Amino acid sequence: MQGLMMDYPLTVKPILERASRIFARKEIVTCGASGVHRYTYGDFYERTCRLANVLYQLGVKPGERVATLAWNTHTHLEAYYAVPCSGAVLHTLNIRLAPDQIVYIARHAEDAILLVDQNLVPLLARIRDQIPSIRHVIVMNEELPMEYPIPVLHYEDLLASASPSFEWPDLDENRAASLCYTSGTTGRPKGCLYSHRSVFLHSMALNMADVFGTTERDVLLPIVPMFHVNAWGTPFSVIMAGAKLVLPGPNMAPRALADMIQAEKVTIAAGVPTIWLGLLAALEEGKHDVSSLRMCVSGGAAIPEGIIETFKKKFGITICHAWGMTETSPLGTVCHLRSNMMDWPEEKQHELMALQGTPAFGVEARAINAEGHEIPWHGKALGELQVRGPWVIREYYGEPNSSESFCGGWFRTGDVVTIREGGYVHIVDRTKDLIKSGGEWISSIELESAIMEHPGVLEAAVVAKPHEKWLERPLACVVPKPDSNGKLTQADLLEFLRLRVASWWLPDEIIFMDALPKTSTGKFNKRLLREQYSSKNLTGSQDRVL
Amino acid sequence: MQGLMMDYPLTVKPILERASRIFARKEIVTCGASGVHRYTYGDFYERTCRLANVLYQLGVKPGERVATLAWNTHTHLEAYYAVPCSGAVLHTLNIRLAPDQIVYIARHAEDAILLVDQNLVPLLARIRDQIPSIRHVIVMNEELPMEYPIPVLHYEDLLASASPSFEWPDLDENRAASLCYTSGTTGRPKGCLYSHRSVFLHSMALNMADVFGTTERDVLLPIVPMFHVNAWGTPFSVIMAGAKLVLPGPNMAPRALADMIQAEKVTIAAGVPTIWLGLLAALEEGKHDVSSLRMCVSGGAAIPEGIIETFKKKFGITICHAWGMTETSPLGTVCHLRSNMMDWPEEKQHELMALQGTPAFGVEARAINAEGHEIPWHGKALGELQVRGPWVIREYYGEPNSSESFCGGWFRTGDVVTIREGGYVHIVDRTKDLIKSGGEWISSIELESAIMEHPGVLEAAVVAKPHEKWLERPLACVVPKPDSNGKLTQADLLEFLRLRVASWWLPDEIIFMDALPKTSTGKFNKRLLREQYSSKNLTGSQDRVL
Repeated sequence: MQGLMMDYPLTVKPILERASRIFARKEIVTCGASGVHRYTYGDFYERTCRLANVLYQLGVKPGERVATLAWNTHTHLEAYYAVPCSGAVLHTLNIRLAPDQIVYIARHAEDAILLVDQNLVPLLARIRDQIPSIRHVIVMNEELPMEYPIPVLHYEDLLASASPSFEWPDLDENRAASLCYTSGTTGRPKGCLYSHRSVFLHSMALNMADVFGTTERDVLLPIVPMFHVNAWGTPFSVIMAGAKLVLPGPNMAPRALADMIQAEKVTIAAGVPTIWLGLLAALEEGKHDVSSLRMCVSGGAAIPEGIIETFKKKFGITICHAWGMTETSPLGTVCHLRSNMMDWPEEKQHELMALQGTPAFGVEARAINAEGHEIPWHGKALGELQVRGPWVIREYYGEPNSSESFCGGWFRTGDVVTIREGGYVHIVDRTKDLIKSGGEWISSIELESAIMEHPGVLEAAVVAKPHEKWLERPLACVVPKPDSNGKLTQADLLEFLRLRVASWWLPDEIIFMDALPKTSTGKFNKRLLREQYSSKNLTGSQDRVL
Repeated sequence: MQGLMMDYPLTVKPILERASRIFARKEIVTCGASGVHRYTYGDFYERTCRLANVLYQLGVKPGERVATLAWNTHTHLEAYYAVPCSGAVLHTLNIRLAPDQIVYIARHAEDAILLVDQNLVPLLARIRDQIPSIRHVIVMNEELPMEYPIPVLHYEDLLASASPSFEWPDLDENRAASLCYTSGTTGRPKGCLYSHRSVFLHSMALNMADVFGTTERDVLLPIVPMFHVNAWGTPFSVIMAGAKLVLPGPNMAPRALADMIQAEKVTIAAGVPTIWLGLLAALEEGKHDVSSLRMCVSGGAAIPEGIIETFKKKFGITICHAWGMTETSPLGTVCHLRSNMMDWPEEKQHELMALQGTPAFGVEARAINAEGHEIPWHGKALGELQVRGPWVIREYYGEPNSSESFCGGWFRTGDVVTIREGGYVHIVDRTKDLIKSGGEWISSIELESAIMEHPGVLEAAVVAKPHEKWLERPLACVVPKPDSNGKLTQADLLEFLRLRVASWWLPDEIIFMDALPKTSTGKFNKRLLREQYSSKNLTGSQDRVL
């Protein structure tokens, strides 16, 4: 027996239309290079209609990709709505990738139109020729006189001559709305093609009281870029909520952010841990009043407990730790204290808040161990985190489906986790960095942390080394502190570790180095270490890597 | 181009399963006749599995209706999940209806199984024979020894002998989950058949920060009955949020409610205005500490501004006014102050909070005037409120679709409203009570209010009287206060009204009475007045009606 409810498609259109009718006077602020731009939801709606007419006039067909290469600005926001609501697909290119990667991604996506911020035109000019699918380049946010090295159209000119009204089409909820590529740290970037339905549901979830709980009375500052996983979905959820939106433009310097928070009375900000570290330093100068700020959503990497504690104690600001991936739209887990934790000692509360949190409603999570069994939720066993839900991808765009990424209807995150009672997820490693020793898993990150607790150690990376009997065994690469250099021995460290980890976790070898190889984003380059030490016979303890 | 997100059905199952895994230790409290019953979400889940096994053993087929005749208790909650999650349809019978209506509804729904609270068995016994589709009656909440006048099974016995685990089937999201009938004040009761999808989305919407914003840290008391529009969806949304749930059982006396709020530290309560009036009186005795209570959700009828003000000023409690119908699951509009109203004078704030509020995200609203045009949102023009959205019905169960209820994909609410800028809806009348005079609408309620402002008037009802030229003209039925009886004249009143309403709103006739006819729920019986005065020639001013 079928229910008798309206067959109402879940699309981006009602988010846009409702906002324009109900919140017409609400403000959207962009902090541009040459000053602050302000307008209302009403203005935003009219310009979004104009942009849709422009796309139509330029011959954009349903489903075609309209790409952006842009900062967090109101014009980028206009594209966020005009493109999917008119039936095309918004493709946000990540300006931080290497030019070759951008070319690869734009070619793979077959982008038809590209909207680019004026100050990113030089970046684009270098690669424009290599993306022949792009029929038109449209320059947004022209703040300075400029001679363009490539043929371009001008966003404001196009909008000025377009009609200010547009009849938004009725779209199927499973139609593609938006396309984001993974950053491709471990292989080729892969595309995640979000549907209207997934955007609708993901935005509702973000606004639930136990996720980020945005209301009309909030002022939201998404510092996470709109070219990175749709700024975590905030351009959709904030307009849905009718909150004031503050877009930081290209300037993400800590003091500039602190200025914005104070001037616009921001209540919720969203960004990665390095942003919060920088902001903390700026705030500690004591020159800003950020009392309006109640919550900083932190994702993208684990946030140290100390930062959570300092924000709370010094500024009364809650850091809300969340976890997700491009493949999960990205909302996966979110960390909040529960009712039974309200009387815990502060220390214990901060330790908990540094976990990745519990699955948001709509996301199912499980963790599968080396034997393929689901691990119990007692915070001890290790397993790979797998998720499923209406805003999780079922396949990558234009890629064959593989058991590396999917498993019986679940998406394999590649994160190794423990899960505590109540569903609190703690990421302990990436599967590729695990040491798989005799059917058991050893977390490289936990072993590194234990080694780095030694007072003579500056930094340490642990990687798997092939082993005949156990398949893999841990190998530790250790950089001693200057005053311990030459004094710290393998025996010292093993003695130290024996008290801290299980005996079968003890590294088979410890190699002392002057420095560890790092990736462009500052992480240990474990791939390089693995390649270096996987096959050759190890010689001595002072082997140089870089 | 289709998106590539998981085809994850929106059903009740993930609400239930996630709650059992993530919130297993959370409490559900029932205040029964013979004491307080407490158990955890974990216990609730196990018993829900047992109930599903019982239904299976009793031969309940997919889509069959399992009815309840029950108060707000944990066993009723078990049925809320076991029935739809096992593939059957939960049908909550309204115990407050006349026995004939219950028979009509149960026969129309063809209920197969009936779960009944022990103290409602006498009510059932009178009509059991007239509902032959019911194969089994199962008695819940047996608190006293009783000789049953009809054959029954015993809920606790059945559960005790059933398996505590159940493999919930994967269901299509458009499958029927739950069936509620309208109260039928203006005709035969009609069934609204909610789908799994609509329950899922409606529950998410309820938990959005700008609707009721329930979190895991809340303690929720649904005073609105679970036999009335699914207690406004709270049994689903509260379990979704993982909040502590307090169920009042059959005792809704104000002091008992105040006791529960104090003892269980309730943070959000939901009920109709008469409940809040009663609670206010109980609280004013000064014997209760209800400082935990932050919000009372009020729906079902307009709430007087004075109540909102008193709750806020005396107890710091916000009354959140919401509007909805059985046909809208019921969430339609919800009233919150906006950011631009925060510095308004209190009086103006309370006036706003007495409005029905703005459409919740997911519900589209418009109002259509007598000429079939949408009215502007300036708070003046009158129109019939129409809504659409994923939790609004597209047709009634087992009824032909009619233009009386639907209009071009919109549901006609039958409420006449004005809509202010920003989307604030104000219900001014029911369409059936409007006076349609020469293509313009006159609100009977507004005219009544103006008449009742006269110091000599006790009460007044205004109804339409047929008119040759204008089709309808207003007729006022007025009960003078005792000391004005015989003194107050039609001329006095018209003179008084001339300053307060448009001249074409002035009643053609005013009839003085000793009392107005009322319905069983205490409202003016306008149908009776219309019948009385529609055809016959009016004689004099002292015509008696009752």
